[in-house]
Amino acid sequence: MAKIAVVPGSFDPLTNGHLDIIKRAARVFGEVRVVIMHNSSKNALFTVEERLALIEEVTSVFPNVRAEMSSGLLVDYAERVGASAIVRGLRAVSDFEYEMQITSMNRFLDESIETFFIMTNNQYSFLSSSIVKEVAKYGGAISGLVPPPVELALRKKFEV
Amino acid sequence: MAKIAVVPGSFDPLTNGHLDIIKRAARVFGEVRVVIMHNSSKNALFTVEERLALIEEVTSVFPNVRAEMSSGLLVDYAERVGASAIVRGLRAVSDFEYEMQITSMNRFLDESIETFFIMTNNQYSFLSSSIVKEVAKYGGAISGLVPPPVELALRKKFEV
Amino acid sequence: MAKIAVVPGSFDPLTNGHLDIIKRAARVFGEVRVVIMHNSSKNALFTVEERLALIEEVTSVFPNVRAEMSSGLLVDYAERVGASAIVRGLRAVSDFEYEMQITSMNRFLDESIETFFIMTNNQYSFLSSSIVKEVAKYGGAISGLVPPPVELALRKKFEV
Amino acid sequence: MAKIAVVPGSFDPLTNGHLDIIKRAARVFGEVRVVIMHNSSKNALFTVEERLALIEEVTSVFPNVRAEMSSGLLVDYAERVGASAIVRGLRAVSDFEYEMQITSMNRFLDESIETFFIMTNNQYSFLSSSIVKEVAKYGGAISGLVPPPVELALRKKFEV
Amino acid sequence: MAKIAVVPGSFDPLTNGHLDIIKRAARVFGEVRVVIMHNSSKNALFTVEERLALIEEVTSVFPNVRAEMSSGLLVDYAERVGASAIVRGLRAVSDFEYEMQITSMNRFLDESIETFFIMTNNQYSFLSSSIVKEVAKYGGAISGLVPPPVELALRKKFEV
Amino acid sequence: MAKIAVVPGSFDPLTNGHLDIIKRAARVFGEVRVVIMHNSSKNALFTVEERLALIEEVTSVFPNVRAEMSSGLLVDYAERVGASAIVRGLRAVSDFEYEMQITSMNRFLDESIETFFIMTNNQYSFLSSSIVKEVAKYGGAISGLVPPPVELALRKKFEV
Repeated sequence: MAKIAVVPGSFDPLTNGHLDIIKRAARVFGEVRVVIMHNSSKNALFTVEERLALIEEVTSVFPNVRAEMSSGLLVDYAERVGASAIVRGLRAVSDFEYEMQITSMNRFLDESIETFFIMTNNQYSFLSSSIVKEVAKYGGAISGLVPPPVELALRKKFEV
Repeated sequence: MAKIAVVPGSFDPLTNGHLDIIKRAARVFGEVRVVIMHNSSKNALFTVEERLALIEEVTSVFPNVRAEMSSGLLVDYAERVGASAIVRGLRAVSDFEYEMQITSMNRFLDESIETFFIMTNNQYSFLSSSIVKEVAKYGGAISGLVPPPVELALRKKFEV
Repeated sequence: MAKIAVVPGSFDPLTNGHLDIIKRAARVFGEVRVVIMHNSSKNALFTVEERLALIEEVTSVFPNVRAEMSSGLLVDYAERVGASAIVRGLRAVSDFEYEMQITSMNRFLDESIETFFIMTNNQYSFLSSSIVKEVAKYGGAISGLVPPPVELALRKKFEV
Repeated sequence: MAKIAVVPGSFDPLTNGHLDIIKRAARVFGEVRVVIMHNSSKNALFTVEERLALIEEVTSVFPNVRAEMSSGLLVDYAERVGASAIVRGLRAVSDFEYEMQITSMNRFLDESIETFFIMTNNQYSFLSSSIVKEVAKYGGAISGLVPPPVELALRKKFEV
Repeated sequence: MAKIAVVPGSFDPLTNGHLDIIKRAARVFGEVRVVIMHNSSKNALFTVEERLALIEEVTSVFPNVRAEMSSGLLVDYAERVGASAIVRGLRAVSDFEYEMQITSMNRFLDESIETFFIMTNNQYSFLSSSIVKEVAKYGGAISGLVPPPVELALRKKFEV
Repeated sequence: MAKIAVVPGSFDPLTNGHLDIIKRAARVFGEVRVVIMHNSSKNALFTVEERLALIEEVTSVFPNVRAEMSSGLLVDYAERVGASAIVRGLRAVSDFEYEMQITSMNRFLDESIETFFIMTNNQYSFLSSSIVKEVAKYGGAISGLVPPPVELALRKKFEV
């Protein structure tokens, strides 16, 4: 039976850095679930539905990748879909410490689900959804930082 | 005369990580004052009074530990109670830099009060009040992460 | 032709740490533009005009330093004024990672503008506008941490 | 076909931290190859043969784990055994940066082999072969830090 | 009964950064033992006896500070002298991780001895015995970085 | 008068990461001196003369770059050549702390010489002379990591 891996995030919006991690996970795991966790009360630029649609459009070329949304605890979602692994991208030291904290808590909640970290491509090591939104807001060029459908969506948000 | 140490924090709520630091401080210092500094305008889950009551209940077994609340500058509080030391827990690199900044400022304000750092037990190195609240909010198991009275209080907050 | 360097920041308010970086940049570059970028929606203590007036007063002794405000992308501002360099102060590891991210993005947007980092004087390594405001708010002594006109302005803000 | 993962190291000697990573890899990958890379000219306490024998003894309970030795480049070894993944443990920020460097180089040499990082159990976050050897050398208790056969081997090395 | 604290190190040679930590420890603890641990096989510039003599000369003004040498495990030494605390200086993130590792191991070996960290004065945050030796070797000015007797001893070592 | 910047290093051998920093420095400063500091007793692969010849060959296209060797303290060299700045590349957090220490010491020795840090191109963020030598030693492909003359020289060293 194919191993299922979960790639969680808020994806507001999906960047080429996220996409790189999803592709790498899809090469090793039998099935990859990209899941938008929408617990947070923080203001998002895109609605969960918009974010999901963008991920679906961009990842439709990968037969073993599926996008979903969920709320509550990530380990509960992982158990529900039968995942044996959570996959996260690592860019920098500050990422690392936050991820260690989350991973320890997830391990405390469910020891059977393993978290794997993949290094983000150097080319995207500075990329984040926040910085992309900041640049797009002031009309900076973001081609090459996000997939084309996301670039289009960002332009619409800020140019109307 | 016994040396007095201050253990400051927001304790929203007290975790087993905090308790570990308080216990370790109480083994070396003659008197330990756990003080809730309530300057911050950030939204807390528990009121200062609720937090104080929880600390008092949990630390009542230690004869040389006392809980209080204060506002203003920590060094002013420390001078007022005659403390010669501030004790803080260290978990991670990100803690470390923030604590270095605060310690430098406190030293600038009052050179006579020394700050001592104690390493949090590895077992609790991922624990924070925030992550405990996040997990409790979605019904995750938090036994072992907070003292029993805090667990009860968290359940009440989120289940009603 | 003299090389122009930009020293960007929010300067809410200018500290002696900022001033140290400005002085060091002014010793090497022909012209230094201190620029307040006012994109952010975060609540500032001083208005952009107040901050600009304080920088102008404090830096008036340096013939090759000029203060300005701008909005939008920093690289657009730098191109507009003909700058070949951006100069930023570095205090700590957490600064470092954030600065690396911003620098990579700026380089992506305009490869011709170089970012130079200068180490903040050890004496000011713990200083930030935020911690100065926090201390001033509770009546702590801030002489030596900010230039005299800033000290006066902070007292006015908090004492009235 | 089962995915093959490589767990490389010098294992001088194997600790419970290493064993924790091997177990976690063995739960997700079809086959795990623990490989001792013996390029380094640095003085080891155990010979490569002794280290290999200890790993074999300790991991014999896992049917999908096999130990080997190799020299040269890790990616060449991984290609030779048909591995699609390298698995490494992460303990601390300093590990992280070194691992990022090695991973970038391995990716440069062979883009098709992915490196996955697993967080070491908090309980073992301070463990390293070096610190275990240092403690064993001065007669400190190392039960619980290394598997029993390794404890025995360390005692023999230092007590004879 | 006065609490005893141990300040361990290799002190090759004592710097003003070390002295700052010793002074701060001596203000809070009843008795401070500065101990040179001479396990290491690494080449030292000064013999253990020379280092001890320099520490004794420089700390003779503090009635509650005593210098000693020891070998073996630090916790064994601490138990032998009845110490309840180990005090270490912290300068930087890289210090921090190494110290966390050593502290975890010491706690594993003897839970009853607590390690306290004190932040080194900002003024000395870049100081280490190694960098002082490197500068002294090439004739750089080291006044203000080490106590006068150490400066004299360094000059003798490099000028003869 | 053109400002002179010094780019120091051991360059054993020059990598594309070093070259990137030299190019960036040469765009802003009037004159750049690449200097090999040969104090260290550590074993180098290339002699100082070989390293100097490689730097001269590779940087001959930049009219304002000159390579030299020196020994002793870097600030003494900088004073001798009339430099107002030292330029160093920054790749990672571990670089950063080491560089902060060296910069503080250099500032202590000569306050008039400023150290500027430039971020290494993301593409080269994992590159170091050591890792290039390690890969070249085992026959790995290093094209794109070092300039062609350095690649040739590495092949000669390891293939003969």
